[in-house]
Amino acid sequence: MHTLLILSKYAEKYRALVEAARLPDLAIGTGSVDVVLGEPSRIREVLHDLPELKWVQATWAGVEPLLDPSLRRDYTLTNARGVFGGLMSEYVFGYLLARERLIFEKHASQRDGRWDPAAPGTLRGKQMGLLGVGTIGAALARTAKHFGMRVKGYTRASEGCPDVDAYFHGENRAAFAADLDYLVCVMPNTKDTRHLVDAPLLAALPPRAVFVNPGRGSSVDEAALAAALESGRLAGAVLDVFQQEPLPPDHVFWRTRNLLITSHTAALSVPADIAPVFIENYRRWIAGKPLQHQVLFERGY
Amino acid sequence: MHTLLILSKYAEKYRALVEAARLPDLAIGTGSVDVVLGEPSRIREVLHDLPELKWVQATWAGVEPLLDPSLRRDYTLTNARGVFGGLMSEYVFGYLLARERLIFEKHASQRDGRWDPAAPGTLRGKQMGLLGVGTIGAALARTAKHFGMRVKGYTRASEGCPDVDAYFHGENRAAFAADLDYLVCVMPNTKDTRHLVDAPLLAALPPRAVFVNPGRGSSVDEAALAAALESGRLAGAVLDVFQQEPLPPDHVFWRTRNLLITSHTAALSVPADIAPVFIENYRRWIAGKPLQHQVLFERGY
Repeated sequence: MHTLLILSKYAEKYRALVEAARLPDLAIGTGSVDVVLGEPSRIREVLHDLPELKWVQATWAGVEPLLDPSLRRDYTLTNARGVFGGLMSEYVFGYLLARERLIFEKHASQRDGRWDPAAPGTLRGKQMGLLGVGTIGAALARTAKHFGMRVKGYTRASEGCPDVDAYFHGENRAAFAADLDYLVCVMPNTKDTRHLVDAPLLAALPPRAVFVNPGRGSSVDEAALAAALESGRLAGAVLDVFQQEPLPPDHVFWRTRNLLITSHTAALSVPADIAPVFIENYRRWIAGKPLQHQVLFERGY
Repeated sequence: MHTLLILSKYAEKYRALVEAARLPDLAIGTGSVDVVLGEPSRIREVLHDLPELKWVQATWAGVEPLLDPSLRRDYTLTNARGVFGGLMSEYVFGYLLARERLIFEKHASQRDGRWDPAAPGTLRGKQMGLLGVGTIGAALARTAKHFGMRVKGYTRASEGCPDVDAYFHGENRAAFAADLDYLVCVMPNTKDTRHLVDAPLLAALPPRAVFVNPGRGSSVDEAALAAALESGRLAGAVLDVFQQEPLPPDHVFWRTRNLLITSHTAALSVPADIAPVFIENYRRWIAGKPLQHQVLFERGY
């Protein structure tokens, strides 16, 4: 018999979804907990009070709260992956199309009662650069191809996505950035990705480029980005994530021009998406099979 | 020898593109004109001054200016079709994603300096209804499928698009409209499509629905639409086309709530897209083959 603890602001929804799956040998919330499903920030608070803990299924992609070296690592940690590609595509292409279609500008004209025949742009023929080509990057690349874009990918080593036209690695960041219309960062938070988007990378982008970050705030040198936007060396940015969240009231980004802020809502974890990940992993677990989306504590994802 | 007259605000671009194709037996602008390429509104002005006229290639999809019964019909009229699907997709999905992603609302929060964790919606699982499934409707259906939507199509008779899940015809408008999240009108302007979007159709939509019209202004009973939006019986509308353009300063739409106006810019004719249509048709014409996209004057498209 196994005992599941659910620690989530959507606990009732998760409970209903897990119960509906009628998983064998699983009780929810009674007895000695060996499995936890929930948000990493909540799990962190009870991590040391669960002597029988064997496995944690995080409902987020990012598991930073559980990676602190002072915390125990004597359990299997799995995260939510492979479920955010669709929402991330809607987020990124919502903002790309808003820019091309002049959606804010047309709205301003309408408020002024002005018929505005200004010609919109198009995504067709434009270039997108992806920092990171995991499952989310692959979903973005597929949507980019749907709209007739060219796609460049920057990865540590992998070159497996058929919708990426050209790959770049390592020190080759300037060649990657040249000629991009849109730079999109979907890197995990690791020591290797910290401040990957820094002043040299931003300087290598064409002035027409727009930077979109639905990934991790730690990937960005925020001061360098604010300076590039204020000086006009970069046309715009759309930021969902920040080094400190909520973004502090005195942060320069609240006053930076050509910047859109979306308050970490690009791809929220929805129980209907995440519960199946847990259910599939539970079936693997009791069958003694390897779990999907296992996090390596040293690697950080 | 044939003589082409180009009547377009992009005349120089069209001339360069046509000359680059080195079409046989074709002079541009010298001699007795038998072929015209250009905007229907400009062609109408000279239509009776071209005794040798044999063929007109319109650079627009809509050819209303040439359909007036008082005008000659002793020539072959072809329009621009099959080239607007991509731009129309960018327009329609730009506004659908702007709505789902709360792009205007998030921007308002940012202006107020407010971290806004409100959860966006998603296109996945939503239903789109297409009024008209020609080449543009088929392109919209394909993009809808890419984003995981369900697609209903209302057509005169055709059922040929693989991305449409269910077809409706004739009097079956209420069943078509029920359960739609988005209604998109891409009908041509004919007597059968006049005021197809009328009070009964709007009343058959769920109150959550949003109406998008990048097609023809004549398809809409504008007073009925304004009333539905003002009363809240319809959640929103995005209109690119109107019965009178530019939209008159005293038109109710400038003051109607939950309405976005885009000033007939959804899919502008770009010479790089349209010139190949003319070039292909010219090759067919001198070879004695049927032309593509021929307009039937009686049918209106």
